[in-house]
Amino acid sequence: MQHGHGDDIHAYPDIRLNFSSNVYNHFDHSALFAYLTTQLPQLGNYPEPTPSRLEQALAKRLQLTPPQVMATSGATEAIYLVAQAFGGSRSYILGPTFSEYADACRIHAHRTATLTPHTPAEALEALAAIPRQPQGETPALCWLCNPNNPTGTVLERKGLLQLVQRRPDLLFVVDASYTPFTAEPLLEPAQAAGLPNIVMLHSMTKRFAIPGLRLGFVTAHAGLLERLRALQMPWSVNSLAQAAGHYLLAHVADYHLPLQQLLNERTRVAEALAQLGVGVHPSDTHILLCQCPCGPAAWLKDRLAHDHGILIRDASNFSGLTQAHFRIAVQQPTENDRLLAAIAHLLNPLEP
Amino acid sequence: MQHGHGDDIHAYPDIRLNFSSNVYNHFDHSALFAYLTTQLPQLGNYPEPTPSRLEQALAKRLQLTPPQVMATSGATEAIYLVAQAFGGSRSYILGPTFSEYADACRIHAHRTATLTPHTPAEALEALAAIPRQPQGETPALCWLCNPNNPTGTVLERKGLLQLVQRRPDLLFVVDASYTPFTAEPLLEPAQAAGLPNIVMLHSMTKRFAIPGLRLGFVTAHAGLLERLRALQMPWSVNSLAQAAGHYLLAHVADYHLPLQQLLNERTRVAEALAQLGVGVHPSDTHILLCQCPCGPAAWLKDRLAHDHGILIRDASNFSGLTQAHFRIAVQQPTENDRLLAAIAHLLNPLEP
Repeated sequence: MQHGHGDDIHAYPDIRLNFSSNVYNHFDHSALFAYLTTQLPQLGNYPEPTPSRLEQALAKRLQLTPPQVMATSGATEAIYLVAQAFGGSRSYILGPTFSEYADACRIHAHRTATLTPHTPAEALEALAAIPRQPQGETPALCWLCNPNNPTGTVLERKGLLQLVQRRPDLLFVVDASYTPFTAEPLLEPAQAAGLPNIVMLHSMTKRFAIPGLRLGFVTAHAGLLERLRALQMPWSVNSLAQAAGHYLLAHVADYHLPLQQLLNERTRVAEALAQLGVGVHPSDTHILLCQCPCGPAAWLKDRLAHDHGILIRDASNFSGLTQAHFRIAVQQPTENDRLLAAIAHLLNPLEP
Repeated sequence: MQHGHGDDIHAYPDIRLNFSSNVYNHFDHSALFAYLTTQLPQLGNYPEPTPSRLEQALAKRLQLTPPQVMATSGATEAIYLVAQAFGGSRSYILGPTFSEYADACRIHAHRTATLTPHTPAEALEALAAIPRQPQGETPALCWLCNPNNPTGTVLERKGLLQLVQRRPDLLFVVDASYTPFTAEPLLEPAQAAGLPNIVMLHSMTKRFAIPGLRLGFVTAHAGLLERLRALQMPWSVNSLAQAAGHYLLAHVADYHLPLQQLLNERTRVAEALAQLGVGVHPSDTHILLCQCPCGPAAWLKDRLAHDHGILIRDASNFSGLTQAHFRIAVQQPTENDRLLAAIAHLLNPLEP
């Protein structure tokens, strides 16, 4: 595991606004927490070794069959299980992206190459240009985060689907954790589960903003999932995560994500940052990858944290990015205003 | 992962007494649950990627240095990480024992042999007789559960220590999860961490009876732990498990385990079962491995569950055991009386 993930809020004493993790911070969790309080006595028993009941509930919701769904301890466990199931494979990673794909591949002895296209269109071209794997060899893996972290970009659905169908020599590992945060059309789990060469990773963490709980799931063709299930340790998904999973599936309506507002704010914040001289990567989500115009992102992060109680993500440790890169997930308008004012103050200290 | 672990309480509608998992069911968790209720808002943030603060607290308590302690998602994660770190090794497993050692070894391509001595003394002899690994080769692994599940037996401390010291060609993986449940002297983590060829696995689950939370830790020489840390996925230990770990270390005194009472009950229950014709394995803990004198353990388990609301562990799926084997963890005297009465009724239905 690499050091330096986002949301290192525990490292700072007095953070009042958190833009550093890609979750939406404004859900009202009080009903969930009240429910979990009633479920605490469950901690006295073992969880189900495999959370079959939760998988059934997920399958029902996603119009899949239970063998096409596997619950995991966050999407991270899914990443590690896929890398393990195909240990020693050739892997292509579409960068810059979440560092755990490369880490999991390294741990499981993949021969890894990173593709670094500049646009989503170029990304599809780069994937299509991967040399064909010789017949009879195991497939090469293509790791895509879609929508992507940290850029927020989306691969065009039709183009991606055609690519998956045309390249049975490649296994596409699509991290769909950020699906709720875009209005662009995306591959559906039910569509992907009908194809033999695509695995989709999902995060309850991201959708419902409960990263402390560790709950994710994988959807894929039943045969592919069987390979992952054979490797999963028992009791991987803790009792409260299972209980929360059931609760959240039954109360999705209480977790309304104001997507259009977030996307409007994304546009407004991006324009305002550009006005301040900050470089901003185009994004299809609420995530903005930015470049500090003066000094390293680490400096900006430290000043924002200590002087303003605001946490952003220093993105310089994403492979392929520079010392100047940072990432924010936009929040509510007044909060974004405070972030913009603080950055303006730090970048132009002599302005009024 | 194999199917058929203990504590399948969720599979039965109306269990009132649970002897099936090896935890002690009578701690008062109310203060812990009240504390965890206050910690639920932590679920909105990521856990520490590696739970360093918890590892520091554990190290302090165990008179170790932080590099000698690694927190894990239950002892089970530790088992899988050890098997992974030494993938492809030769492994010797002292059976009958917890099935996850063999499962983790199989997943990580170990060449595994099971030793099945009849007594702890024979076990030490069998380990000493393992062929010496050729110099320069990686060590072979020896997996010991000590005290052992499901037999409850303990390897004599001095003999085990001498063996570890005399056999640098072997790496001893000692699952110490049941340490709190015996009065026999055992290797201390601080002693073991000074040796280069022993890893100890520990379970907060078992000591504090919170298996739903998933919290364990490994103690070993810092160099050995570095190999495991390099493989661990981030956020493996969920936020509430970390919070509970801190709480429990600060409140160990509230979790008094009535060891002498449990061991007295163990003796009394073993004698009473023997009177009923049940075969009972000698045990140094509160765990009793038993053999049903008539019919399979599955029958006894089903009848106890459905007719009496009592759950026992069908132990027939432990490698090396028979259809007749079952396991219980003794509880409080009146509960043990109810178990004994129910078994007596089922084995001798014509008695008054």
